[in-house]
Amino acid sequence: MEFSSKLLEKAVHEMSQLPGIGKRTALRLVLHLLKQPKDQTTFLSQALTQMREEVKFCGSCHNISDVEICEICGNDKRNHQIICVVEDIRDVMAIENTRQFKGIYHVLGGKISPIDGVGPSQLNINTLVEKVKAGNVTELIFALSSTMEGDTTNFFIYRQIKDYPIITSTIARGIAVGDELEYADEVTLGRSILQRIPFENSLKNN
Amino acid sequence: MEFSSKLLEKAVHEMSQLPGIGKRTALRLVLHLLKQPKDQTTFLSQALTQMREEVKFCGSCHNISDVEICEICGNDKRNHQIICVVEDIRDVMAIENTRQFKGIYHVLGGKISPIDGVGPSQLNINTLVEKVKAGNVTELIFALSSTMEGDTTNFFIYRQIKDYPIITSTIARGIAVGDELEYADEVTLGRSILQRIPFENSLKNN
Repeated sequence: MEFSSKLLEKAVHEMSQLPGIGKRTALRLVLHLLKQPKDQTTFLSQALTQMREEVKFCGSCHNISDVEICEICGNDKRNHQIICVVEDIRDVMAIENTRQFKGIYHVLGGKISPIDGVGPSQLNINTLVEKVKAGNVTELIFALSSTMEGDTTNFFIYRQIKDYPIITSTIARGIAVGDELEYADEVTLGRSILQRIPFENSLKNN
Repeated sequence: MEFSSKLLEKAVHEMSQLPGIGKRTALRLVLHLLKQPKDQTTFLSQALTQMREEVKFCGSCHNISDVEICEICGNDKRNHQIICVVEDIRDVMAIENTRQFKGIYHVLGGKISPIDGVGPSQLNINTLVEKVKAGNVTELIFALSSTMEGDTTNFFIYRQIKDYPIITSTIARGIAVGDELEYADEVTLGRSILQRIPFENSLKNN
């Protein structure tokens, strides 16, 4: 792709560094900004820079926060003894949207993945183990993705805390509510049979 | 979507103003920036701001340029009497990539589209007509998209310059090179039959 302007080329290059944004999409986005009032570009640039410079992570759960301790960890009405372990901030947002969880979170910041060069030391695992050792936790809920990396991470944490008197659980896997059985994959359907629950329990959740 | 940080929310909001970028994608992009070195965000913001502030449009063809007259218009080896009329900058890049065109361009900046509130006065049509009136043009090649808006724009320009002694042409429409006839749409296939060319001419272009 040949550009008639170095400024344009540089903007497209930087934009195309974002994941899932190729050169053509980057060009489309940049040309869109050119057609809009200058303010839009200024606002975008400022918002990104300010966020990157000033955003904080909660000192307790590592969730994104504007203050030292995030709103969830700072909320006395939540049960601080039940910790839901998640990969990243988006998972916190997804679970919060359900309004079904009244405990607190612990954001690992990823999962153990040797292929991507992510080892346990790069994740917020130690602080989680410390919380358990301190004795203030009654239950850990593992809510990582059910991939090899997720399972490895779960097990890595589990090994370090299994001797402490806490409950460990994982979120339920099964056929999504509203899904047809015939289109479900075998592994999920198989698991949903093995891990069936008493019918009375299913009534409670509705 | 509820955010635990106003800074994050603002960044996602601004990012999602871009066309084709929804809230979820914006969040993914912004969280990606958070995981990367600060430099990446700084470079992106600076490149966008600088481009928006400093980019110029060629005084002659309205293509994007870092100088008053773009490289193409400033190139003496190109035929300045043949002008290819295009909608936007991406079309110039696409045609330049073919290396088949030795004339110059005229970028309209869009096409006449009452639905989108774009009238002739918002496009670079007057400067094009002036060029024709000045008598330095021998051929205008219309290379707008073949939509109702494109056709309207072509015709609007054609009416104003039809009394001047110049050739007007449009780029050839037909079955794409390498495409199967059976999958072509009827309109294109019909046109490619009506507007067939001598077999000898087709040999020349290869």
